[in-house]
Amino acid sequence: MEGKEEDVRLGANRFSERQPIGTAAQSQHKDYKEPPPAPLFEPGELTSWSFYRAGIAEFMATLLFLYITILTVMGVVESNTKCSTVGIQGIAWAFGGMIFALVYCTAGISGGHINPAVTFGLFLARKLSLTRALFYMVMQCLGAICGAGVVKGFRKGLYESNGGGANVVAAGYTKGDGLGAEIVGTFILVYTVFSATDAKRNARDSHVPILAPLPIGFAVFLVHLATIPITGTGINPARSLGAAIIYNKDHAWDDHWIFWVGPFIGAALAAMYHQIVIRAIPFKSRP
Amino acid sequence: MEGKEEDVRLGANRFSERQPIGTAAQSQHKDYKEPPPAPLFEPGELTSWSFYRAGIAEFMATLLFLYITILTVMGVVESNTKCSTVGIQGIAWAFGGMIFALVYCTAGISGGHINPAVTFGLFLARKLSLTRALFYMVMQCLGAICGAGVVKGFRKGLYESNGGGANVVAAGYTKGDGLGAEIVGTFILVYTVFSATDAKRNARDSHVPILAPLPIGFAVFLVHLATIPITGTGINPARSLGAAIIYNKDHAWDDHWIFWVGPFIGAALAAMYHQIVIRAIPFKSRP
Amino acid sequence: MEGKEEDVRLGANRFSERQPIGTAAQSQHKDYKEPPPAPLFEPGELTSWSFYRAGIAEFMATLLFLYITILTVMGVVESNTKCSTVGIQGIAWAFGGMIFALVYCTAGISGGHINPAVTFGLFLARKLSLTRALFYMVMQCLGAICGAGVVKGFRKGLYESNGGGANVVAAGYTKGDGLGAEIVGTFILVYTVFSATDAKRNARDSHVPILAPLPIGFAVFLVHLATIPITGTGINPARSLGAAIIYNKDHAWDDHWIFWVGPFIGAALAAMYHQIVIRAIPFKSRP
Amino acid sequence: MEGKEEDVRLGANRFSERQPIGTAAQSQHKDYKEPPPAPLFEPGELTSWSFYRAGIAEFMATLLFLYITILTVMGVVESNTKCSTVGIQGIAWAFGGMIFALVYCTAGISGGHINPAVTFGLFLARKLSLTRALFYMVMQCLGAICGAGVVKGFRKGLYESNGGGANVVAAGYTKGDGLGAEIVGTFILVYTVFSATDAKRNARDSHVPILAPLPIGFAVFLVHLATIPITGTGINPARSLGAAIIYNKDHAWDDHWIFWVGPFIGAALAAMYHQIVIRAIPFKSRP
Repeated sequence: MEGKEEDVRLGANRFSERQPIGTAAQSQHKDYKEPPPAPLFEPGELTSWSFYRAGIAEFMATLLFLYITILTVMGVVESNTKCSTVGIQGIAWAFGGMIFALVYCTAGISGGHINPAVTFGLFLARKLSLTRALFYMVMQCLGAICGAGVVKGFRKGLYESNGGGANVVAAGYTKGDGLGAEIVGTFILVYTVFSATDAKRNARDSHVPILAPLPIGFAVFLVHLATIPITGTGINPARSLGAAIIYNKDHAWDDHWIFWVGPFIGAALAAMYHQIVIRAIPFKSRP
Repeated sequence: MEGKEEDVRLGANRFSERQPIGTAAQSQHKDYKEPPPAPLFEPGELTSWSFYRAGIAEFMATLLFLYITILTVMGVVESNTKCSTVGIQGIAWAFGGMIFALVYCTAGISGGHINPAVTFGLFLARKLSLTRALFYMVMQCLGAICGAGVVKGFRKGLYESNGGGANVVAAGYTKGDGLGAEIVGTFILVYTVFSATDAKRNARDSHVPILAPLPIGFAVFLVHLATIPITGTGINPARSLGAAIIYNKDHAWDDHWIFWVGPFIGAALAAMYHQIVIRAIPFKSRP
Repeated sequence: MEGKEEDVRLGANRFSERQPIGTAAQSQHKDYKEPPPAPLFEPGELTSWSFYRAGIAEFMATLLFLYITILTVMGVVESNTKCSTVGIQGIAWAFGGMIFALVYCTAGISGGHINPAVTFGLFLARKLSLTRALFYMVMQCLGAICGAGVVKGFRKGLYESNGGGANVVAAGYTKGDGLGAEIVGTFILVYTVFSATDAKRNARDSHVPILAPLPIGFAVFLVHLATIPITGTGINPARSLGAAIIYNKDHAWDDHWIFWVGPFIGAALAAMYHQIVIRAIPFKSRP
Repeated sequence: MEGKEEDVRLGANRFSERQPIGTAAQSQHKDYKEPPPAPLFEPGELTSWSFYRAGIAEFMATLLFLYITILTVMGVVESNTKCSTVGIQGIAWAFGGMIFALVYCTAGISGGHINPAVTFGLFLARKLSLTRALFYMVMQCLGAICGAGVVKGFRKGLYESNGGGANVVAAGYTKGDGLGAEIVGTFILVYTVFSATDAKRNARDSHVPILAPLPIGFAVFLVHLATIPITGTGINPARSLGAAIIYNKDHAWDDHWIFWVGPFIGAALAAMYHQIVIRAIPFKSRP
């Protein structure tokens, strides 16, 4: 009991283990069991209703994500003075807030990825099978296309003359800048996802599973605050693909690879950072 | 214990059931009991003080909801430059924030609907009796009328010259656009309400009941960010009716049916989606 | 267990008691004990260190509250274009956010009132002694004066030419409008405080004590969104007094009574509403 | 059980101890054990992987903190009209939001300081060893330099012509004003950290450890709302140092001492206030 209180306290960084550098941390005193890595192919999955339902939930969540966010973008960019709209900050809230609400709603159904880069990062950490990862990515992309399509349906002319919410590298920035911004931005998002969903941390810090969707949504909000002026902020290949397909102008397609390569590199780096540096979280046994 | 940790982890989408498609999911290993559907008419209800108190709480909450939100709208629209006001984004915060605070305050008294579309959706899922649903809707509408009336009382002239916060389809959009925006917007809200209050999820994800009012409030905020430029955002027939009755100009009444038909269709679709697609949430027994 | 899950669910308004109107609700099946009303005078209090520490905490919290909020107001009003400041919405965040953070920090020390109207409302509900209520109010007012004084110390000239953050009824509104706005605004705040801190709800809804400071802070934020254009929003006599004393111009003193009478009436109405209408929250025994 | 409910209730300031002024509070009825002060030098620490991992986590968190915040600042200041950016309020959200997300992610690894002033305050309260404190500060400063460097890498010219996000005292304010603003601002932050992580409060108020990163992030947000017009808001010597080194212009270095002396004085005052005034939180034994 006393040990738990100390652990939970933010400042309680008291030295709590005697472990020589280089050995595997926490070889004893564990009170959680690391789940085994997910197999690449899980035969039973394809005949389970919960597998297809998870895909439907990812489809629906990504559709609603694109609908709200691209509609918000359209409302802001079509106005001459941003003051009479929700503003660029409102766009950042739309992206981050939707991720918060949708992760909250779908976490129990599909894990609440809503983003191929998140799925890719979790796949690298072997949290889900290859079959499931590919199925999720396809459903996310289909959902994103439908969501952006609904927005275009409202006012086709305005949609096309205002860029359709597609991600492009802004004038004044190189393609390398855009790629870098996508890599670091996705790193922040996927790092937050890993931190928020680490089984060891869940067992140790009582606040982690309770608040999890909130910092994940905030991570998306914060990356948008910083990088909207550079790329419009992708950090989600499904969101970029959906907007690009519905917008379908050349200059959107020219930069499009950036919004797949960048997020996937960022997600891979976050998975590596988590597995190599962070994975051995000190854990005090509670007798 | 280990099973629970895995379940809570966001990324832990490991395949956890062997169930052929099409059979009823989770026929065993339940550790919760689905409550029976509410009867259409519950005879004892009408003689219970808690029934009337719930109605009073819905009345008061909807009154305060309209008071704060319409007053915020008036403060923004009466200014030439939105920069010297809380802005359109501030309006979205007023609607979403009030729903967060009021759901938090009234959830234990009446369930915290504050919206006939939410009541309708929960009634379709048989979460409350027909008597109670109708009583709530009447009290919500009366509260909304009173709330808008108080705002008009402050400055009658300004109220009338600035649209009175009534919902109308904006110039450039068809009635079909407005109806569609209301349907999808209400779908997002009621889908969040169902996700946040699902008994199965409550038993499984510890964070769900704790955060519930927050994603519900955010859903309202997000729909406003996106659809204020189209309809001013209704997704709540009581809010639309209250503002329309107090404003009482022809062009508000012309579109008024949209703000009843749209939200009710959206709520019905969300109830169907939840019951048909999502209802059988995989649930691992915890021995 | 099953009963608890049903209770927590937002939509689970199933009829759960058979009680004729007019009798005392919940006379049996209680699993909490209503604390006895606080005595008017508690002799031991005045010799307890925790009593004085609570007063110091109220003083310090109100000082910091005025410091941050009035400094934010000054930063916004001194600029010609609100766009290059945090804006009026930023002012609302400053007031609401500080109440959230300070209630969180001082709830365990003094109850986290930081507002004579809140202290008055809780005193009417007999949650604290008269001695303590008066001591808190004095410390809150002293803290507010010091906090506003520190802000004036930064740039005396700017402070005086920009209104000093004092509450006055805006041009175009009558004193009655201002009084009404203060009454309803304080009602919302104190109603949220009562709802968030009700012992019966705490026992029933697990999310209530965990989130409590957040809806209280949001209530302050929301009232500011709506009524800054009318009175600058008081709903806190200490905040109004501190700014008025340090600003000390006639037109601030002319309206000053509104910012005591309004909040105290609003707090009294909220206490009455809670005690008369809401107090008998249905409560299911959990065997 | 009944005692706990009373304690948690915000308004439940009922007199609960009979203790003469001046004696040590709570000498009995404790159900938590104060952890012993951390030693100045803990020999085993330097051979523990968790020690170095904590330093890496502080480095990475401060790098990401500077990256997002300085990039957001650059996006706002390079625009003539703040309306087409996320605005000054967006800058405040970037600083506060990043602290929320990063404290959440690194609290279990390093304690989540991300700020030498926080490390200094917790060291004064003997929550960590001198070795660890110095190691953290060095890693935080290195991270901050790298983070600001990445931002400069995007567009060197814009970075230098727009002030590089470096903290300076604004025209119209004296160095004393700037120092005062930094002292009070850091006091608010470190006071919130102490309140959020107090072991006694954790044992008593169930909401404290769950919400902890949120009020800490809000404290940073709120101080930025108020003092951006005065100093750009430091309250974090690593953030100020990183921006100053990468910007490296004379006028940034002239004021630089303010952003070390101010935060360290503020942190020391908060530690003193917490230890001397607040430390003896009344605590009711729960039989």
